Amino acid sequence: MRALVFEPGHGVAVRPIDAPLPGPGEARVAVTLAGVCNTDLEILRGYMGADEGPRVLGHELVGRVERCDNPAWIGRRVVGEINVGCGSCEACDRGSANHCATRTVMGIRGRQGCFAQSVVLPIANLHRVPDDVPDEAAVFVEPLAAALQVLEQVEIPARTDVAVIGDGKLGLLVAMVLADHGADVTVVGRHARKLAIAEAVGCRTCAPEAARARGFDRVVEATGGPEGFALALRLLRPRGTLVLKSTYHGASQLELAPVVIDEITVVGSRCGPFARALALLQQGRIDPRPLLDARYDLADGAEALAHAARDGVLKVVIAPH
Amino acid sequence: MRALVFEPGHGVAVRPIDAPLPGPGEARVAVTLAGVCNTDLEILRGYMGADEGPRVLGHELVGRVERCDNPAWIGRRVVGEINVGCGSCEACDRGSANHCATRTVMGIRGRQGCFAQSVVLPIANLHRVPDDVPDEAAVFVEPLAAALQVLEQVEIPARTDVAVIGDGKLGLLVAMVLADHGADVTVVGRHARKLAIAEAVGCRTCAPEAARARGFDRVVEATGGPEGFALALRLLRPRGTLVLKSTYHGASQLELAPVVIDEITVVGSRCGPFARALALLQQGRIDPRPLLDARYDLADGAEALAHAARDGVLKVVIAPH
Repeated sequence: MRALVFEPGHGVAVRPIDAPLPGPGEARVAVTLAGVCNTDLEILRGYMGADEGPRVLGHELVGRVERCDNPAWIGRRVVGEINVGCGSCEACDRGSANHCATRTVMGIRGRQGCFAQSVVLPIANLHRVPDDVPDEAAVFVEPLAAALQVLEQVEIPARTDVAVIGDGKLGLLVAMVLADHGADVTVVGRHARKLAIAEAVGCRTCAPEAARARGFDRVVEATGGPEGFALALRLLRPRGTLVLKSTYHGASQLELAPVVIDEITVVGSRCGPFARALALLQQGRIDPRPLLDARYDLADGAEALAHAARDGVLKVVIAPH
Repeated sequence: MRALVFEPGHGVAVRPIDAPLPGPGEARVAVTLAGVCNTDLEILRGYMGADEGPRVLGHELVGRVERCDNPAWIGRRVVGEINVGCGSCEACDRGSANHCATRTVMGIRGRQGCFAQSVVLPIANLHRVPDDVPDEAAVFVEPLAAALQVLEQVEIPARTDVAVIGDGKLGLLVAMVLADHGADVTVVGRHARKLAIAEAVGCRTCAPEAARARGFDRVVEATGGPEGFALALRLLRPRGTLVLKSTYHGASQLELAPVVIDEITVVGSRCGPFARALALLQQGRIDPRPLLDARYDLADGAEALAHAARDGVLKVVIAPH
C-alpha cells in the first residue's frame, strides 16, 4: 500500500510500504479521510519523537474496516481512538489506557499513523459512525472529542463566562462545544475569518488586548504558547479555572505567582470521549465542516502538510483512495 | 509605641511610631507574639511591595484586644485574619475578601503589620483563642490555616499517597495537617532535623532524588521554586493534583507539557480557615511548637529577622512586650 512516510531530517514522501496485518482483536481500517493536526506539524518540526525513525504520521481518521477476525465489523464505517494501552498496568486496569506509561499512540508513538491507505487499531478503539454523519464531519471526531474533554474535567454551569484563547482548529472546536453546552463564550484571537466561524455559533470574539481582565470564570488556553498562558491568568477571576488544551513544547518563561495569589485551578486536558463527539455530530448540534480548508489526495500528501502549516489555515484532510 | 519598621533600601530598625487608632468595627490588639514568615523575608529582599514606603511588616500574631468600640471584645486573647476587603466589590459580596482586588493585607499591602506593640484589625477578622491553646501554639494559626486550605480545596481520601515537597515551616505544617487527616504522607527534603519533625507525626521522609516517580496522587509544592515544580510533576501519577502552596516570585523556566499530557490539575492555594486551625490546636491534634526555633524581644527584631533568614531555621517569633 502507499503511505506518507516521515523520516526525521528528510521530510515526508509517499512510499510503498507493507500493508499492516491485524492481530487477534485488531482491525485493519481502509482510510477514507485523515485530518492534519498541529501535533503532526510539530513532529515534522522536530518538537517530539525525534528519537523515532521513519514512520507514518496521522491520528485523525474516518475509514471502513476491511480486515478483522470479527466478521461483524467488516465493512463498518468507523473512527478510532488513538491510544493503545499495554493492558496490564495500573492505568490500564483503571480503564485509563490514555495514561498507560508504555502506551502506543497512532501516528505519534510506536504505532503507524493514518496518512496511509490503511491502518491497524484494536477493535476496542473503534467507534461505528452513524450513517447520517458524513465523512467530512466524522474526520473531526478525534479533535472534537479532545474539545469535549474540557466538559468531562471541569464543571461549567450554563451562562458561565468562558474565554477561549486561540482561534485555531482546536480553539474553534472548543468554542463550538462550549457554546452548545450553554456557556457565554468569548473567543480571543486575531484572524477575522476564523473568528467569524465562532461568531456563527453564537460566540463573542475579540482581540487579545481587548479581552476583559478578570472577566472570566473559566479560560481555555488553546494556543500552547507562554503568551496565551499569561493572558489566561490575566482574564481569569480569582478562584477561576484555566484549562490547558494545547501541548506546550519545552520550557518557557512563565509566572506562576498569579496561580497561587488568585487560587487558580489549572487543568491539563488531552484526549476525550469519542462516543459523545459522535452523538453531537449525529444530533446536528456541532457542525465542524466550516473548519475544512482543503482536501488532498495521498499522492499530494507532502503538499497537504505544507498547506496545513501555512498561517491562517484551518483543517486540511488527506484522502488516501 | 515601638515597632520594627522596614524601609526599602535601609533595612529594618525599631522605632517609635504612633499607636494605631481603631475605627468603628475595628479593634486594637496588643501583640503578645508575632511569627516571622518567609513572606516577610521575601519583602525584605525586595521581591514584593517595592513600591511601598517605610512600613511595619508581620502578619502572624497572637495578642489581646486592648481597645475596641465593642466592650465584649476588650481583654480577649485573639488571632487575626490578614486580608481586609473593600466590602463592596463582587469578591467581598461573595464573602471572599481574601480575593478582593483592592484588599489591604496586614504587614504585606497597605496595612500596618504586627511586628509592633499593637496592631489594628476589623473585629470581623478576629478569632478568640481557647484558654487551653498556649500563645506559642496560637501564633501558628495563620500558617496552619494556610496549610489547612489544601484540604478546603482538594479532596484527599484517607490513605491517599501524598508527597509534600519542602521541609520548611509551611511544608511541615502541611505534612502535619495531612497526616492528621489520614493521608499517607511523604515529606521530600534535605534537612534531617526538619524531616525528623515530620517523622514524629507519622510521615515518611526522603531526599528529592529518592522520591518515587509517578508514585503520588497528590503533591503539595512548598518550596516556591521551579525545581520543586518540576519535581512535583515527576512524582505525580497521571490525573493527579499538584497544590502550589508557596508563592513563586517572578518568571521561571517551567515545562508545562507534563501538565497537559498527564492531565494534571494544578491548584494555587493561599490563606485558609482560622476556625478550623484553632479547633485542631484545641483538640491537640496538631502541635506546631516543635517548629519554634527562637524567641526575640521586639528590641532585637532586626536580629530576629536575620536569624529567621539563616539556612535551616524554622519559626522565629518576636515578643513586643
